[in-house]
Amino acid sequence: MSADAGRVVTAAIVVIGNEVLSGRVEDANIRFLARALKTQGIRLREARVIPDVLDKIVATVNELRAAHDYVFTTGGIGPTHDDITAEAVARAFGVALERNAQAAAILDEYYGDEINEARLRMANVPVGGELLDNPVSRAPGFRVENVYVLPGVPRIMQAIFDGFKHRLAGGRPVLSRTITAFVPESVAAGGLGAIQQRFPQAELGSYPYVRNRRFGTALVVRTEDPSLLDRVSEEVAALVRSLGEEPQVTDGESSP
Amino acid sequence: MSADAGRVVTAAIVVIGNEVLSGRVEDANIRFLARALKTQGIRLREARVIPDVLDKIVATVNELRAAHDYVFTTGGIGPTHDDITAEAVARAFGVALERNAQAAAILDEYYGDEINEARLRMANVPVGGELLDNPVSRAPGFRVENVYVLPGVPRIMQAIFDGFKHRLAGGRPVLSRTITAFVPESVAAGGLGAIQQRFPQAELGSYPYVRNRRFGTALVVRTEDPSLLDRVSEEVAALVRSLGEEPQVTDGESSP
Repeated sequence: MSADAGRVVTAAIVVIGNEVLSGRVEDANIRFLARALKTQGIRLREARVIPDVLDKIVATVNELRAAHDYVFTTGGIGPTHDDITAEAVARAFGVALERNAQAAAILDEYYGDEINEARLRMANVPVGGELLDNPVSRAPGFRVENVYVLPGVPRIMQAIFDGFKHRLAGGRPVLSRTITAFVPESVAAGGLGAIQQRFPQAELGSYPYVRNRRFGTALVVRTEDPSLLDRVSEEVAALVRSLGEEPQVTDGESSP
Repeated sequence: MSADAGRVVTAAIVVIGNEVLSGRVEDANIRFLARALKTQGIRLREARVIPDVLDKIVATVNELRAAHDYVFTTGGIGPTHDDITAEAVARAFGVALERNAQAAAILDEYYGDEINEARLRMANVPVGGELLDNPVSRAPGFRVENVYVLPGVPRIMQAIFDGFKHRLAGGRPVLSRTITAFVPESVAAGGLGAIQQRFPQAELGSYPYVRNRRFGTALVVRTEDPSLLDRVSEEVAALVRSLGEEPQVTDGESSP
């Protein structure tokens, strides 16, 4: 699809995983998708981690698919009893869950003699769902309308995402620039607030850090407008200089 | 407070952070809190990452504080214009945001001659809020009813949490045991589903892994009931043996 240059396109992520809520593992999918969506001109507006509970998945998917252009779910599409995302997405859309013939053929070819009912469970897709190719372990993800259903294992999720990302319709990409300096956040605060007030169309984030026992701040300007990016970044750099420090300016969102 | 042994106590986390949604940083607070709450006998039921937008923070805090025993927010309580969590929590509770005298005194003592209006902004607390001691950088967190407002910087957030965690009223702690074996998830799936059906009070999670090019699965049993933990863990271990592998059994949630 071609990008609609004038529109802000938004997305939400739903991480389905008791293992994240129990602290067993750290989620690694939010950050990957956040960065990848940004590159596609899509703004991630919200991410939720929820348990493997059918009603909760249904309600969350329905709330977020109505509020955003895209929803990406991760987790819960494997072969075991706790993999209930496909069933939940079918319910969210009010359609049946069916054994998808194309998905079953993919799994059949991949597993050969080792195919079994648990593996074939991964071919259960809501009616009307479109398969998303999995080049790593074959069991496909799927899309229903604006909801993309992906596995939780990061390298498999990433491979599937990379296969369809060019088909996502993005808006104007968010541009960003980072101005870093050894200025304590609270010393820059007054000047930053004044800049933000004068340029409400840009988003000005302030992130403190400590390095070599010195307090510093990374100031990130975000906007879709290249000339506004230049203008606000220059104002921030001038503020840093007025406080007696030399700013380091880099494109993108860099950490010190 | 003493633990109420019979009740399930739940919590939600709200990560307030454009920098997480933009992919600039990876959230590190959800996992810390997930594990720490588990130790206190509190179940983390949901975590949300939301932007630095006042109305969104107000709505999210109000939804989650009504649904859970505890809500923990991280981020947005620093000295700059984008730190709006205190104002949002005041609005969520319908109270004014005031300069808290005790917090101002703490900051005044800490900063001395370097106190300024931006730093004093960190003393703005909703009326009725109780301060939460910050042993690292002094600027306190605060609590309003069941909502605990913490900074986003992980080591400061953790230090504040460790200072009040003993006052949280937990329920029966969730016990867990991990049975790990070189059995592919889809081979164990049928037997696991049968065990889960027979013991619906226990939660049986299945997490595949690959090591030395062999497929394995970590099977995690979670329940508040010690005898049920033993019983289900034994059933899972027996299933693994019936599939020709020797299970590794460890207490807690271990990763292979």
